[in-house]
Amino acid sequence: MPESTESPGVFRRPVSRRTLLTGAAAGVLAPVLVTGAQAHAEVRPGAGTGSVAVKATGDGSKPVTRKVTLYAESVAGGLTGYGLEPGQATVPGPILEMWEGDTYEITLVNNTSERLSIHAHGVDYDTASDGTPMNDSATEAGQTRTYVWKTHTAHRRKDGTWAPGSAGYWHYHDHAMGGDHGTKGISQGLYGALIVRRSKDILPDKQFTVVFNDMTINNKVGADVPTLEAKLGERVEFIAIGHGNNFHTFHVHAHRWADNRTGLLDGPHDATPLIDNKDLNPGSSFGFQVIAGEGVGPGAWMYHCHVQYHADGGMVGVFLVTDEDGSVPASAQTALDRFHSGHMGHMGGMDHP
Amino acid sequence: MPESTESPGVFRRPVSRRTLLTGAAAGVLAPVLVTGAQAHAEVRPGAGTGSVAVKATGDGSKPVTRKVTLYAESVAGGLTGYGLEPGQATVPGPILEMWEGDTYEITLVNNTSERLSIHAHGVDYDTASDGTPMNDSATEAGQTRTYVWKTHTAHRRKDGTWAPGSAGYWHYHDHAMGGDHGTKGISQGLYGALIVRRSKDILPDKQFTVVFNDMTINNKVGADVPTLEAKLGERVEFIAIGHGNNFHTFHVHAHRWADNRTGLLDGPHDATPLIDNKDLNPGSSFGFQVIAGEGVGPGAWMYHCHVQYHADGGMVGVFLVTDEDGSVPASAQTALDRFHSGHMGHMGGMDHP
Amino acid sequence: MPESTESPGVFRRPVSRRTLLTGAAAGVLAPVLVTGAQAHAEVRPGAGTGSVAVKATGDGSKPVTRKVTLYAESVAGGLTGYGLEPGQATVPGPILEMWEGDTYEITLVNNTSERLSIHAHGVDYDTASDGTPMNDSATEAGQTRTYVWKTHTAHRRKDGTWAPGSAGYWHYHDHAMGGDHGTKGISQGLYGALIVRRSKDILPDKQFTVVFNDMTINNKVGADVPTLEAKLGERVEFIAIGHGNNFHTFHVHAHRWADNRTGLLDGPHDATPLIDNKDLNPGSSFGFQVIAGEGVGPGAWMYHCHVQYHADGGMVGVFLVTDEDGSVPASAQTALDRFHSGHMGHMGGMDHP
Repeated sequence: MPESTESPGVFRRPVSRRTLLTGAAAGVLAPVLVTGAQAHAEVRPGAGTGSVAVKATGDGSKPVTRKVTLYAESVAGGLTGYGLEPGQATVPGPILEMWEGDTYEITLVNNTSERLSIHAHGVDYDTASDGTPMNDSATEAGQTRTYVWKTHTAHRRKDGTWAPGSAGYWHYHDHAMGGDHGTKGISQGLYGALIVRRSKDILPDKQFTVVFNDMTINNKVGADVPTLEAKLGERVEFIAIGHGNNFHTFHVHAHRWADNRTGLLDGPHDATPLIDNKDLNPGSSFGFQVIAGEGVGPGAWMYHCHVQYHADGGMVGVFLVTDEDGSVPASAQTALDRFHSGHMGHMGGMDHP
Repeated sequence: MPESTESPGVFRRPVSRRTLLTGAAAGVLAPVLVTGAQAHAEVRPGAGTGSVAVKATGDGSKPVTRKVTLYAESVAGGLTGYGLEPGQATVPGPILEMWEGDTYEITLVNNTSERLSIHAHGVDYDTASDGTPMNDSATEAGQTRTYVWKTHTAHRRKDGTWAPGSAGYWHYHDHAMGGDHGTKGISQGLYGALIVRRSKDILPDKQFTVVFNDMTINNKVGADVPTLEAKLGERVEFIAIGHGNNFHTFHVHAHRWADNRTGLLDGPHDATPLIDNKDLNPGSSFGFQVIAGEGVGPGAWMYHCHVQYHADGGMVGVFLVTDEDGSVPASAQTALDRFHSGHMGHMGGMDHP
Repeated sequence: MPESTESPGVFRRPVSRRTLLTGAAAGVLAPVLVTGAQAHAEVRPGAGTGSVAVKATGDGSKPVTRKVTLYAESVAGGLTGYGLEPGQATVPGPILEMWEGDTYEITLVNNTSERLSIHAHGVDYDTASDGTPMNDSATEAGQTRTYVWKTHTAHRRKDGTWAPGSAGYWHYHDHAMGGDHGTKGISQGLYGALIVRRSKDILPDKQFTVVFNDMTINNKVGADVPTLEAKLGERVEFIAIGHGNNFHTFHVHAHRWADNRTGLLDGPHDATPLIDNKDLNPGSSFGFQVIAGEGVGPGAWMYHCHVQYHADGGMVGVFLVTDEDGSVPASAQTALDRFHSGHMGHMGGMDHP
């Protein structure tokens, strides 16, 4: 029986202006929201790059219902984002986490002048929470609407087949601004990661949302693409999401993962392919965890779209693995400087022909 | 030892004009052909949308050979399709099913004025049944040619490795009209689903073939894209096929599946990713079963290409989940009306840039 | 403790001019380099089409370090390739194999007039071997630089999770010519297959590297696309690699494989999908083994990009399965002749619109 949590403030941590600006400027997901089955949650400022992370400390054994308010607002640079407090919208929006069995009641406050909505992948919702104009579940300018997302654990059906649990690296996005499919809203930044974890899933030390949206990463290009920073040995979780109108492939240097639900193998005989490059096309998402610098050491490691003209056009960022104490090796700093000076990135606006 | 079935008529059920027109107009696959290891087959008119379904009642334990005649003919709207009877060609063509071990002897009657063929994915055939001009296995205008497709169960090779069984959600298509690769034939609708089932596979209540062919779904766009109707709780099988020249991603609202051979999980610890959005590019196919409305209820649920301009351009349809008794909830009817009135769909002919 | 091998010559077999020319002209990977844990290696000239194959005879139980020199040089037709001896560069470059645990020390000799590098997927390297200009690990014109690639077997981490082994069908390519991502180098042919095998992996009889690079296969189109020849019953390994700026799907007629690390199933209940068409986009790679002609017999079987305009534009080749004694069936020869005469392939330069 899900328990309702009436004190959402516990999970909507205020974000300092400095932290927010850093996060927003870097284009990195600012706040991380995690629901859990327990009363306690660990708050670690800065656990993500320029972010506040709220980590569940429990194990998902007791489902809860969280009430969360999301504010859809303008973001500097002509963007639009979702945020957990007024004036704090970011692109991408906050990471929303839940354990299988949990429920979100998302109250969306539309502080823009256009119709928009929130549509989730992977979770259970009725048509009133579908987020589409077709099902009359968009939110008009200046209005507020509550969307309910449920999840469930795996269970055996009467016919003997298994209804799969909801766990996955999912995502949410607008489905109503500028048309019936939210093309304008998505183009401007109305998207974010939604993680449904299974009991006993390994929790990461850090999380990064990376969205390939048309010819951008998190609506940034070139030197503005966020640097994702982690210490050597930290468990880093990537949530990769595709949006827009172009096909892409996501590549990280010197790190790789298993192509399954978690990115982790069951053991040495697991036949899942290990990959370091994966298609990331509109509406798709995947996630995985790596140990920063494992077997390769600290350094400035590129992550980028592997379509050549996309990389040349600026769909490239740096996964910065520092020393264990957080210091940046000199060679990594030189590489970063080279990247930000324009030696890397743009090639005179060259684009896909 | 395969047994030859000389009475193909049992499996080529006549389709009533009303049913056919409904099916053809809706762009939904009309007839479903299922081979099986048993003498009896269950015929349930209308089990698919606008279709006659011939369901195997056995378990695939005894391989059979089926002789089937397919007629390639013009279809209204400048299309070309395959059909089980003269004058009854549809786009997509009939679903052809078999159990691992079964054989099809497909006699193709070319009632058009151009060279065409039938080429199958997944099954076993020699070069004479390849369907390519290169192997001289096309069928000239007005001619008839027989293509033989065999399948097999998994078996261990002498070197200890496993030769995989043929089971899969495959497809068939022209490989000769308008060029050496059937580009014109495919463009006009010469394609269909081919399902090879493994013994003990779960059989669905309903089946829908969804083909993303260039910028269309089943060669339809916008309000003409077929509405796929099922009752709450029915086991619905989607067979998704990609064709043409564009990349696509297939998304269904409020339903999801495992990214493996069947779309079903082995159990609660299966590490297969659960997805609701998957690349569907030319020549690829996949299938899965969902329980209509499971955990989300009845309603008008969108299925669409998630490439934004493709969705805006009309690559969108409705998966209509009715109440258990087949009645359409008022809100779902409103959503359907909204969809068909043009509130959804086209955006002034906007296309991929 | 890895053992260093100071006699790389054992593994850098001289390639005869005739063999090389045949291989280069056909666009087929010429030499195959395999590291192993044992002192002996079996050399079988011609085991690949137009190639010399060096096959490891051991089982990968004892890790070794191989020192290899790669020469980056001009190749006829305005291409650039990697080769194991001066003047012997090919497009694609040599297949580089290793067992999990092995190390390569690749000395790259840049015999061109432009900056270039070698960047590997899947293996372990520090930033000095990253191959990117950002990490100052490119090789200037006329210069030499050594890149070190390590691999590892799976092992359990202290937190109980598994660090996956390095095994995979990976690849290597330039990351520095003509820009920060090697767009020019890749476009001209600086790429090749890198296979990391796991102990007990089945070794093939023949190997073919197939690279979909922009609108070409191995930088060839139409009748120039290499014919991949194998005898009926031989175990043939395909390594498929995507490069450039276009999306593609790789299809082989009459053969199929499991969509996992090896392409092989564990047994009859393995839920991995069987496929014969797979996305092959820039930066991605996969590999699989098939038994040539198994269940379908000898013949000229097409392999091609299944994007229609790409196939029509010449992204098509022939997988020629001969009789067991190596003779070509008359019908297969006729099909080959038809293919090379232009009946197949180009359609007047038609390209993706």
